[in-house]
Amino acid sequence: MLIVKKFGGTSVGDKDRIFNVARRCIEEYQKGNDVVVVLSAMGKTTDHLLEQARDINPKAPKRELDMLMTVGEQTSVALMAMAMHALGVPAISLNAFQIGMRTTSNYGNSRLKDIDTERIRHELDNRKIVIITGFQGVNKYEDYTTLGRGGSDTTAVALAAVLHADACEIFTDVDGVYTADPRIVVNARKLKEITYDEMLDLATSGAGVLHNRSVEMAKKYGVTLVVRSSLNDSEGTVVKEEVSVERMLISGAALDKKAARISVLGVKDEPGIAFKLFNTLSKNNINVDIILQSVGRDGTKDISFTVDEDDVDEVISLIEKNKTRITAQKVTCMRDIAKISIVGAGMVSNPGVAAKMFESLYNAGININMISTSEIRITVLVAQEDAEKALIACHDAFGLAD
Amino acid sequence: MLIVKKFGGTSVGDKDRIFNVARRCIEEYQKGNDVVVVLSAMGKTTDHLLEQARDINPKAPKRELDMLMTVGEQTSVALMAMAMHALGVPAISLNAFQIGMRTTSNYGNSRLKDIDTERIRHELDNRKIVIITGFQGVNKYEDYTTLGRGGSDTTAVALAAVLHADACEIFTDVDGVYTADPRIVVNARKLKEITYDEMLDLATSGAGVLHNRSVEMAKKYGVTLVVRSSLNDSEGTVVKEEVSVERMLISGAALDKKAARISVLGVKDEPGIAFKLFNTLSKNNINVDIILQSVGRDGTKDISFTVDEDDVDEVISLIEKNKTRITAQKVTCMRDIAKISIVGAGMVSNPGVAAKMFESLYNAGININMISTSEIRITVLVAQEDAEKALIACHDAFGLAD
Repeated sequence: MLIVKKFGGTSVGDKDRIFNVARRCIEEYQKGNDVVVVLSAMGKTTDHLLEQARDINPKAPKRELDMLMTVGEQTSVALMAMAMHALGVPAISLNAFQIGMRTTSNYGNSRLKDIDTERIRHELDNRKIVIITGFQGVNKYEDYTTLGRGGSDTTAVALAAVLHADACEIFTDVDGVYTADPRIVVNARKLKEITYDEMLDLATSGAGVLHNRSVEMAKKYGVTLVVRSSLNDSEGTVVKEEVSVERMLISGAALDKKAARISVLGVKDEPGIAFKLFNTLSKNNINVDIILQSVGRDGTKDISFTVDEDDVDEVISLIEKNKTRITAQKVTCMRDIAKISIVGAGMVSNPGVAAKMFESLYNAGININMISTSEIRITVLVAQEDAEKALIACHDAFGLAD
Repeated sequence: MLIVKKFGGTSVGDKDRIFNVARRCIEEYQKGNDVVVVLSAMGKTTDHLLEQARDINPKAPKRELDMLMTVGEQTSVALMAMAMHALGVPAISLNAFQIGMRTTSNYGNSRLKDIDTERIRHELDNRKIVIITGFQGVNKYEDYTTLGRGGSDTTAVALAAVLHADACEIFTDVDGVYTADPRIVVNARKLKEITYDEMLDLATSGAGVLHNRSVEMAKKYGVTLVVRSSLNDSEGTVVKEEVSVERMLISGAALDKKAARISVLGVKDEPGIAFKLFNTLSKNNINVDIILQSVGRDGTKDISFTVDEDDVDEVISLIEKNKTRITAQKVTCMRDIAKISIVGAGMVSNPGVAAKMFESLYNAGININMISTSEIRITVLVAQEDAEKALIACHDAFGLAD
């Protein structure tokens, strides 16, 4: 068997944790399996490097930022290889140049294109544990690139895909995917299995276990993921195409407090306005989530949408600059809101799910601000002060608890 | 003109120093010159990385140590590029993979074999300042290697050679090569020029300004070196094949307190003994300096030699292990000694230099422990407590002072 194991920054944050990870990987190796390990930068290393960069140049070129960032993972993998050698097991660390980890040419947020597996196969054939830098790649200019948030998960999935691994285990500080954030919903239940699509909708709805790009890639290449704890041996959650257990109507509920609502009021009711608005935003790398358009008065309409809280100032300034082009009369913003989503592949064939969700919120006395639905997800905006109460209400309504 | 500038770790030790170096390079660039900058790791970075490694595995594989060490220079060059951008000048950082810096396959102390100049030329043609990681290379296995002590100097000289640079400036914390260490000999004089051979003999005699491998390479490829201060604009010392000023008899005097003397007593007076002894040492990477063999009694002889103080324990244990093979009766060691050398291309054609040196030491009441000479160098061993006095006596005797 070939197993890919990915450990995040906190899992390799200090000497003890490094040895803990080394021992877990060696256990797998000693069963006779081939083991490929993907690591992030240790603990706060990435933050520390970013700070150094900002101190020298707050507008540092992204190309040089990537050159700087990649030292974080290189440090992790070298130290991990040393730890495994200390435990008497042959291991070798490899970086993006050494495994031809090719990406698109953009910096800071590039996408993986290709991996040359020859070196990895060679080292595995020599019965070495192969330790690979997550998060980084090399573009066509032979420059380092980085994969953006959650990039190491994507590295692990890509490696599992090209190596035809038998399993891809993502180790985190939680022990699996829960029906809701257990810090808020005390009776939340760990899921044994979840589909890629459900996981994707949960990820975009604020459940931070896996980054959605890695789930997309796992779905595309049929890589079965296991989300497990790096601290204990509990079984974790399997993410795959079809779940084998009897399907629940709803798999989970998620809360995203970092959403903010922008409303562009009084734009002309003519073709092309929405295009101009959202094209401006996407050109500036602003991710827009829920979009809602309502007819206003006097032949005008209002467009509302949600963005990440951090992007609010930029969005407002962009709209103000383009006010004439998009014929906006006024822009308003609401920061103290939260997004509540329920996700479940089962809802496709079950009408009445939305109604049940709205009923549970009504019973809890919570006002719904905006509604958006996809095939397997229903999202509502509520006031931030109602957020936890709303999450618990939905979680209870669908019997997700233990 | 194409200028290669090399700055050591203390020159880029913090933000202010990084900007100081950036400004000096930009000055050169704004004269219309092409500028290639070679950097070491910042300040204590290398020591810190080594500490981390030792903490995890005191016997870490050299291959992984090199993988770890190389992050030091990569951090320096990325931050330097950011600083230059902050000052409005286009700059780009490049590591060993990006410029095909090929070395021999051994780790920790490899030698440069080849550099692919295409990328560097391309960036210079685009009027960028090119900032390159010193000290590191890539071997035929596509693994990182490091060049050993003083490695960044060698990187700079090699780049100057392959790029046919018009000058190669080595910036240090001293402002040139002196007739003796100015911290000991207060009236020591800065040399305007010195030959490669003299510089080599000074380097191996304990004058730490340049590493001898970089001087050897400069001599081999005819690269004119300038040793300058990174803190001020004074002219520095030019190192080249032939000096143009009227030749002094002696160029400088050097002191090496890190020497230790080993004596192997009572070995058989038969062929092959010296070979067996020094072959054992060289196989274990021990550098032997002065060697002296004297006839003992009863058909035996004594062999004495000097090694670096740090190697003493290893040398003694190696000899003890091979005692029978090398027919040694006893091994003794003297640690509290120092090496005093005078160096000068002029002494080839001037008899009496040695006599004058011995006279000056005699007049100062200093006992000579061992003597060794080369064409342009005379070295004596003295007691460590006499070291400074001996250096000053020699320096004065040859009129080296201001």
